[in-house]
Amino acid sequence: MINIDWKPDKNSNMPLYRQIVDYIKEKISGWEWIVGAKLPSQRKLADIFEVNRSTLIEAIDELKSYGLIDGRSKGGTVIVNNTWSVLASGKAPNWEKYIKSGVYEPNLSTIQMINKLEYEDNIIRLSTGELSPELFPKNAMKTVLSKVADDISSLGYERTKGSLELRKIISNYVKKFGINASPSSILIVSGSLQALQLISMSILKPGDDVLVEKPSYIKSINVFESAGMKLKGISMDMHGIEIREILKNINKETPILYTIPTFQNPTGIVMSENRRNELIKICTKERLPIIEDDAYRELWFDKKPPQTLKSKDRNGIVLYIGTMSKCLSAGMRVGWVIGPEAVIDRLGDVKMQTDYGASSLSQYAAAEWISSGLYEKYIEKLRYELKSRRDFTINLLHEYFYDLAEWNVPKGGFYIWLKLKVKIDVNKLFNLSWKQGILINPGYIYDFHKNSNIRISYSYASYSEMHIGIKKLSEIVRKLI
Amino acid sequence: MINIDWKPDKNSNMPLYRQIVDYIKEKISGWEWIVGAKLPSQRKLADIFEVNRSTLIEAIDELKSYGLIDGRSKGGTVIVNNTWSVLASGKAPNWEKYIKSGVYEPNLSTIQMINKLEYEDNIIRLSTGELSPELFPKNAMKTVLSKVADDISSLGYERTKGSLELRKIISNYVKKFGINASPSSILIVSGSLQALQLISMSILKPGDDVLVEKPSYIKSINVFESAGMKLKGISMDMHGIEIREILKNINKETPILYTIPTFQNPTGIVMSENRRNELIKICTKERLPIIEDDAYRELWFDKKPPQTLKSKDRNGIVLYIGTMSKCLSAGMRVGWVIGPEAVIDRLGDVKMQTDYGASSLSQYAAAEWISSGLYEKYIEKLRYELKSRRDFTINLLHEYFYDLAEWNVPKGGFYIWLKLKVKIDVNKLFNLSWKQGILINPGYIYDFHKNSNIRISYSYASYSEMHIGIKKLSEIVRKLI
Repeated sequence: MINIDWKPDKNSNMPLYRQIVDYIKEKISGWEWIVGAKLPSQRKLADIFEVNRSTLIEAIDELKSYGLIDGRSKGGTVIVNNTWSVLASGKAPNWEKYIKSGVYEPNLSTIQMINKLEYEDNIIRLSTGELSPELFPKNAMKTVLSKVADDISSLGYERTKGSLELRKIISNYVKKFGINASPSSILIVSGSLQALQLISMSILKPGDDVLVEKPSYIKSINVFESAGMKLKGISMDMHGIEIREILKNINKETPILYTIPTFQNPTGIVMSENRRNELIKICTKERLPIIEDDAYRELWFDKKPPQTLKSKDRNGIVLYIGTMSKCLSAGMRVGWVIGPEAVIDRLGDVKMQTDYGASSLSQYAAAEWISSGLYEKYIEKLRYELKSRRDFTINLLHEYFYDLAEWNVPKGGFYIWLKLKVKIDVNKLFNLSWKQGILINPGYIYDFHKNSNIRISYSYASYSEMHIGIKKLSEIVRKLI
Repeated sequence: MINIDWKPDKNSNMPLYRQIVDYIKEKISGWEWIVGAKLPSQRKLADIFEVNRSTLIEAIDELKSYGLIDGRSKGGTVIVNNTWSVLASGKAPNWEKYIKSGVYEPNLSTIQMINKLEYEDNIIRLSTGELSPELFPKNAMKTVLSKVADDISSLGYERTKGSLELRKIISNYVKKFGINASPSSILIVSGSLQALQLISMSILKPGDDVLVEKPSYIKSINVFESAGMKLKGISMDMHGIEIREILKNINKETPILYTIPTFQNPTGIVMSENRRNELIKICTKERLPIIEDDAYRELWFDKKPPQTLKSKDRNGIVLYIGTMSKCLSAGMRVGWVIGPEAVIDRLGDVKMQTDYGASSLSQYAAAEWISSGLYEKYIEKLRYELKSRRDFTINLLHEYFYDLAEWNVPKGGFYIWLKLKVKIDVNKLFNLSWKQGILINPGYIYDFHKNSNIRISYSYASYSEMHIGIKKLSEIVRKLI
């Protein structure tokens, strides 16, 4: 896809069409835009450049006359040549073929779109699973970074499993979640997504079916699929993943089960204490390892959620994943995996071959955040803030969606799982919404079949944006009915 | 492999053997050490715990009596059970099987060993391809981090291709290497290794043969092999990779060529201007893309190396990789890939699915380092330091290795490629050396066949360590003849 973030300068002496020709020529001759790439439609181009259609056509015609682009083919205007390659005898590699041949799946097109739209100006992000910049603890971060700046005497590669200092601190920190793990059973990763990627490449094999809740966050990314596995959805009730359904779906080859037991993404469901015990019991009996993704645990509002699956694990079947991304800052890219040492060693060895470990700077900062006590103090405040955001958003839903949808009232985490009661095309809703400046995550990216859900995050947008966003969204829904 | 970094407390009232029993019991019952794992030999264990052999045997016997370990099998002492699983009805998953089933190759055993040995106390690292902590610009880093602390107002996920600010800065920075690239043709990665990993998973396909210099750094890691490709070694002369040999070894299916044209790792060779022109010409003609790994470019001593391959590329065939790891700090984990936008988009999309981008904190710091001008100023000083380290090391070689080896005098970078003139087993030399506290990188990890080389890095150890290290190493070589 060609991205254009440039406009001609209307105050320049050079005619607009000339500026456009020069811009496109530069892109093509510098091989940033490759032969075979398609330009946006002429209408779109005129929009992007903020020029009249006739100005645009003048520019396009000139470029055609150079033999650089060709507009006759059915697919629209395509780059067919470049001045350099006309001069040189060679041709560029067939990059399009390369791009298609890699084993890694591309992101779902909806996700690619969301990743891009998030950076548009004036878009209200009801979609984003991260904390609002408003909630960022600027002063505490400053304190931490000043301390780090004083302490750092060098910043080299870390040990295979990550900074020993940080692993000691985490070993101590996770005790409050009932987890006993020595630093050598802990691997520092660049966020929990990387933990999943390492697991998929290091200890699972192509062809395996991974059991996951349905719907689940994991369905929206291709981390297991790209390593050749398939996801098998297991239904949930209000107490979490259904044991009976697990038993129906496992066989001898089933390698692993992935779950977010606490404030599940996207449904917000908290697995009950009983269900946790049952799950551990049955998985122990079936020798089925569990990946416990515990990203949201600390973001409870009124009372603490039940203890971790890992704390109930007496047989080393749970690989536990924690992260700082949801509580503090996604940009830190610091998470951790805890499990049997032999597995952690293997994941660490592959991590060393993948990126030589997480940023030492981030690891220093993470260690300082936790060991100084600032992390826990800050999270305590954050809980109130998030709870108040949840309440505010639920009130908005009562006001604007009372007749349109049903929803859960999450007891923690970031998400409301909104189920539309009216029959509309959620994909259409997604597209109409972003065009009007509101970004939502359509439910189908998380599910195994079509659904009529939307994931609303109350963690990111400001209160006023939230108000405008939910109101507008309800109007769009009403129009679509 | 079981790691033990604990010793019994000799001042405790509890007998030493009891402390050992409790320690091992805890490791086993907590499932950090899994069933099937092998303990180090009794002699080694006694060394590790710093106890008499008899004390150790007392502890081992007690653990045997619990049925936790078994020493009868040929493979030494093995963990055969754990108290919890005896109590519980289930058994742990067969993790050993999992560990073997992942697609990613384990690191070469020599590399795994080096990664571990680097953190032993009192080891002289003649092996390490990173800057000495002595060279770390502590004050400048402090200035940078203070500025970052003041500036950061939030720290969320970055754009798909990384911080736009940093990409703009890099777009400007690489102009001095003759590279014209807009921010949208640049992807920020967590170091150059990750760039290679992304390339291997995103645009290459299993079965392909990747052409590389022989010897080459890339042979010591499994990044391409794990994605199902093979490396094909192409010989070099003093001007760099040999064009004739490339032509002999390519066919229609050859997807890409990987080269470190400037201060090659491990040989230190600089590709000449002529060779660069020829390489670009021939690869353009053959439509063979090039990965240009340019990690060491700025570390020249007397005069600048020839301009980048990328600067000579008129057809978008070069994927250029830069990094801060070698010049500033490996712990930053900040690098960049520059190439045709469609390829960069694809790599960025896969990166989003791999780890959601590099640490924002590191990206902020990198941007500040470069834009403040501190980076260039610091590198200027660094060049003198490194040159003086090179001179010092070459003098040591003249003193201690004059009759034992031949070597190049590198004009930049970190490495001396020492070719032993005497016939000894380099693997034996490696093992004897680290046991005497000197870590070297044996040449065979970089090569396609046995060789009699050692890579000596003058970037890491202190002057006095270097002196002791080279002297001792020569003594070990002499003993081995």
